[in-house]
Amino acid sequence: LGELHPRLKQDCLLVGRFPLCRLLLMRDANYPWFILVPDREGITEIHELSEQDQVQLVRESSLLAATLAECFQAHKLNIAALGNVVAQLHVHHIVRYTHDPAWPAPVWGRVEPRPYGEQELQGVMARLKGCPMGGFKFCV
Amino acid sequence: LGELHPRLKQDCLLVGRFPLCRLLLMRDANYPWFILVPDREGITEIHELSEQDQVQLVRESSLLAATLAECFQAHKLNIAALGNVVAQLHVHHIVRYTHDPAWPAPVWGRVEPRPYGEQELQGVMARLKGCPMGGFKFCV
Repeated sequence: LGELHPRLKQDCLLVGRFPLCRLLLMRDANYPWFILVPDREGITEIHELSEQDQVQLVRESSLLAATLAECFQAHKLNIAALGNVVAQLHVHHIVRYTHDPAWPAPVWGRVEPRPYGEQELQGVMARLKGCPMGGFKFCV
Repeated sequence: LGELHPRLKQDCLLVGRFPLCRLLLMRDANYPWFILVPDREGITEIHELSEQDQVQLVRESSLLAATLAECFQAHKLNIAALGNVVAQLHVHHIVRYTHDPAWPAPVWGRVEPRPYGEQELQGVMARLKGCPMGGFKFCV
């Protein structure tokens, strides 16, 4: 496995992996906020991936998105590859609710991250584990 | 062709179309800001598209992204499907520069949109037209 950017390591918890991507959970209890990181070196943009990897990324992204929509009863999903601060390609998958603290704005720069309590974190993980995703292996 | 959401019609200029998506230009001269809208009715999330359409979307998105990176000498691209306000599925493709008015923050909610002058708009269109994209048809 390639290296994760130090900022991703610091801000996120490693949840597991798909064939192409690692799945991280952002340490911000304001939203169920997940990040896919393709395990490819030196890539900062989706279009820099091989065509085959692009197709695999959209497959893993949609599998994750469909699971989040269902398990977390999302009102909307926000999916984004930004990378202005952390160049390593990573794709945000954020469960949004019409009652969440940033709605309807995008989440970035709105509300200070709120640390997870242990029980709250276990609740999120239990919820995710209740919805198996084909080809995904949990590591927590 | 399906209907465009009134808000997209109002905020954007129709540039042309790929086989699956219409390409719009956001009327905000702060950034070269493009939007892909898959021509499918009643879809709000990428994972709701058929697998075939998902693959076509990533193909068109990456073709556009590679073109923008080159033609506009982007420092970074920001690609996002948010849709908290306009539910019709649309995917932002924003050319970012380290000297743009919102850098390094995401663009939403940062700086008031700046209307294009006629010459500036023609400059953006000329730049895009200088980089042909396979399967894309301009309508302006």
